[in-house]
Amino acid sequence: MDLKSKIRVIEDYPKEGISFKDITTLLKDKDAFKETIDELEKAISNLDFDYIAGIESRGLIFGAPLADRLGKGFIPIRKPGKLPGAIKKVSYNLEYGSGELEMHEDAISQGDKVVIIDDLIATGGSAKAAGELIESLGGKVSAFEFLIELTSLDGRSYLSDYEVISLIKYDH
Amino acid sequence: MDLKSKIRVIEDYPKEGISFKDITTLLKDKDAFKETIDELEKAISNLDFDYIAGIESRGLIFGAPLADRLGKGFIPIRKPGKLPGAIKKVSYNLEYGSGELEMHEDAISQGDKVVIIDDLIATGGSAKAAGELIESLGGKVSAFEFLIELTSLDGRSYLSDYEVISLIKYDH
Repeated sequence: MDLKSKIRVIEDYPKEGISFKDITTLLKDKDAFKETIDELEKAISNLDFDYIAGIESRGLIFGAPLADRLGKGFIPIRKPGKLPGAIKKVSYNLEYGSGELEMHEDAISQGDKVVIIDDLIATGGSAKAAGELIESLGGKVSAFEFLIELTSLDGRSYLSDYEVISLIKYDH
Repeated sequence: MDLKSKIRVIEDYPKEGISFKDITTLLKDKDAFKETIDELEKAISNLDFDYIAGIESRGLIFGAPLADRLGKGFIPIRKPGKLPGAIKKVSYNLEYGSGELEMHEDAISQGDKVVIIDDLIATGGSAKAAGELIESLGGKVSAFEFLIELTSLDGRSYLSDYEVISLIKYDH
């Protein structure tokens, strides 16, 4: 299936010049959604890792089914103020604006190996921040996996210390 | 497995008097996470429906694996300002504070049958709002399903027109 054709592109959202990749059309199509999870699963099934971490919000939608299928624990990496326990926080810049991500301090133990999932890599800012969170707690990033990669923004080189997997490429 | 024992209760979060049910400890435990999805799946597997809708954010974590397992399309019901297409919006009151939820207008077609998933039902405000969104677009709510029900807040009676399923009960 041509999964790329299931993604709706909306121009000038959330601001002028941004060509937003709307995955809700893919999610709604049961065959496209299943095949997406199939392909995301296949690409990481030979890696050695303990947990799937999903970056809020769209990373949760792909990360949770992968954890379920592969029999891994799931760790949500969240926007500020959502996690009730003791947290670690990190700030980052992203394609438009800036942000912060948080994890529970006890989400990771020394040596835990984690695959980090998000729907899209643009400049790689939020992904790199998520990796730093995991490493600051003693964990190791086994790979980053994205449904969509915006190649001209070259987030991949910002994550050059890591294995980076993506299924669908757009120039921008 | 006693899934309730896998949930961490944090007192006075996000404000005094609230006994917050922290599901991150359950998600992180691979066996507990799988069994949770097993039980959520079993409880709706005989229902007639076309889509799973998950309420942002924690409803996405349970809804997406259920859609994947049951071969259904997945519809995210989101906080304001997150969806790029034409949207329908609804406001609601919840246990602490108030909120708004949004769906894409084209997420639902006339007669589509939807199971709505969230992690927790308190007063039922956000769930009822999600149901109204789906009905306003011509859809039908086949059931609401929650991992956790806070029984003393009686959200179930606020949803008395619907089938309401929950796995784990707390008094408050």
